[in-house]
Amino acid sequence: MFSHDALSRIQPTDPRLMTQAQARLDRLTKPLGSGGRLEEVAARYVMITGEMNPKVPHGVVFTFAADHGVTVEGVSAYPSAVTPQMVLNFLRGGAGVNVLARHVGIEIRVVDIGVAFDFEDAPGLIHKKIMPGTKNLLVESAMSSAQAEQALQVGIDLATEAAQEGIGLIGTGEMGIGNTTASSAITAVVTRRPVFEVTGRGTGIDDASHARKIDVIQRALAFHRLDSSDAMKVLVKVGGLEIGGLAGLMLGAAAARIPVVLDGFIAGAAALIAVGLQPRCRDYLIASHRSVERGHQAILDHLDVKPLFDLDLRLGEGTGACLGMSLVLAAVKILTEMATFDEAGVSERER
Amino acid sequence: MFSHDALSRIQPTDPRLMTQAQARLDRLTKPLGSGGRLEEVAARYVMITGEMNPKVPHGVVFTFAADHGVTVEGVSAYPSAVTPQMVLNFLRGGAGVNVLARHVGIEIRVVDIGVAFDFEDAPGLIHKKIMPGTKNLLVESAMSSAQAEQALQVGIDLATEAAQEGIGLIGTGEMGIGNTTASSAITAVVTRRPVFEVTGRGTGIDDASHARKIDVIQRALAFHRLDSSDAMKVLVKVGGLEIGGLAGLMLGAAAARIPVVLDGFIAGAAALIAVGLQPRCRDYLIASHRSVERGHQAILDHLDVKPLFDLDLRLGEGTGACLGMSLVLAAVKILTEMATFDEAGVSERER
Repeated sequence: MFSHDALSRIQPTDPRLMTQAQARLDRLTKPLGSGGRLEEVAARYVMITGEMNPKVPHGVVFTFAADHGVTVEGVSAYPSAVTPQMVLNFLRGGAGVNVLARHVGIEIRVVDIGVAFDFEDAPGLIHKKIMPGTKNLLVESAMSSAQAEQALQVGIDLATEAAQEGIGLIGTGEMGIGNTTASSAITAVVTRRPVFEVTGRGTGIDDASHARKIDVIQRALAFHRLDSSDAMKVLVKVGGLEIGGLAGLMLGAAAARIPVVLDGFIAGAAALIAVGLQPRCRDYLIASHRSVERGHQAILDHLDVKPLFDLDLRLGEGTGACLGMSLVLAAVKILTEMATFDEAGVSERER
Repeated sequence: MFSHDALSRIQPTDPRLMTQAQARLDRLTKPLGSGGRLEEVAARYVMITGEMNPKVPHGVVFTFAADHGVTVEGVSAYPSAVTPQMVLNFLRGGAGVNVLARHVGIEIRVVDIGVAFDFEDAPGLIHKKIMPGTKNLLVESAMSSAQAEQALQVGIDLATEAAQEGIGLIGTGEMGIGNTTASSAITAVVTRRPVFEVTGRGTGIDDASHARKIDVIQRALAFHRLDSSDAMKVLVKVGGLEIGGLAGLMLGAAAARIPVVLDGFIAGAAALIAVGLQPRCRDYLIASHRSVERGHQAILDHLDVKPLFDLDLRLGEGTGACLGMSLVLAAVKILTEMATFDEAGVSERER
């Protein structure tokens, strides 16, 4: 069901391309290196895509939605009904991610990969439902191995089709009441940190619910006996369908040399799965922001990536990814639209 | 020459407006407070403008250019000729600020307030030259009191005219070889920090030039005997014409209740002057980024403002302001374009 071909198609990136891009950046009319992280992003964009003189890419955020059986344990401040309600809000353009995507000129594609609701033929929705939400990870596997492979394949296929359409920049988004619980569980296993260190308040739970959430994850991990090196099993036992879809999206994009801009904590958990399945995938990921959600820093440290900004966001949906994608587009334009010293007749440095 | 009327027209901001804006933000379809600093910016925008349901403003960056007599002391990596060369680059659209302004949909207006070059009738340039660069602040006053007042008035007038045009968001930009020396001098005096703590490498000088720059500023401050509370005298003795223009721009914008998005270190030095002349001005300022330039953090601390991002930029021109203005526009759109829970039929929190 899950084609391992995508994993083997991911090539190591070539740092010489970054050096060549930096040489071009150094000829532009600005003090050397003064573009800071925009220069770094431009050079990474060149390294990932292999395009030394890239066109400004069309960017798409894929927002995967799914439900989580673990919500019956009282780990979220909002009822599961909010997952489909927010999907409909996305389709009508009224959510935060819609506003920010419009603002920065990015397209959103909303994918039902496992919402516990029948959307029938809701227009604009990409129908890829694998099952109506995961099982309760506290007492059984969140999904079967076949379902996990299917979730990965949905993401791989969407990225592959996007590449065929000529989409040059992909962002990650998600919606799923309960998905910070799954993400904290994944983070605790893969980064080998204590559960309490990587478990935050999600949508804003109180102290009692937070304590319960930590307890639920601890008991789940004791029950499933997971190994940090077996990413597939981690996804099966404590993952989410949207997390599997996002991990597949990253793998498919990397195979097609498309940079992936990560949103926050859930995207980070998906990246742990993707990089666990194929470590080469890491070099194709650009972290947009650091989330307020506890545990995100542990993910960023584990992946050894530095986010571009920190606006105290914990909104998910792909909101941070939209802002990060706008910075990637800005970086590409810095590289390709600025005048060189020669072109502009500007004197170079004296000392 | 300098109308003190602008100072008295600046009203204290009303924090009740922020509270009202936050109440609206709390009804939008997102977990409470999850929009982080975008919510804070939206609420501040409402407080500054008094508009509870603001339209998306037209934003303009004013990039003031001027030369600095102190460059004869060897404090910069680039020759003064770069100031007019970069002004021409701005007018042709090839500089970093042009690229970023186009990217985010912001207009740039370039003002010659004191470049040592005859631009004749260069199209697109706003001609407000007060003198062809300041005097060498190491051995004499950078400018006369009359010239400093004139520089402030240029900025006030441009902001007042912008308000009359309906411009709702103003950003600060600058170009002036040598202006980090003037800005470090201002910062040392106003924040009462040692010169070496607030003096960086500007466009990228080597160790010897950096030591010389610190020495030049220390000797200048010993010579001029400045008082941190006399902002006008600080501007006269060690300021720059573009710094005076920017301070005036901030005062004029605040008088018209237009939010001002600060760029980096030079903008910060200008803000120290503006806030020194009228402390109420501070509440109208939004800091875009933290610059690499040493001394910028001291300014941010002194003003008690927290920048929105840090991308290791030290490019000036208004580049950081453009990115910051885009975040302000995003924040306004979050406030006004997102659906409420009621409108979207989304369930509210349970716990």
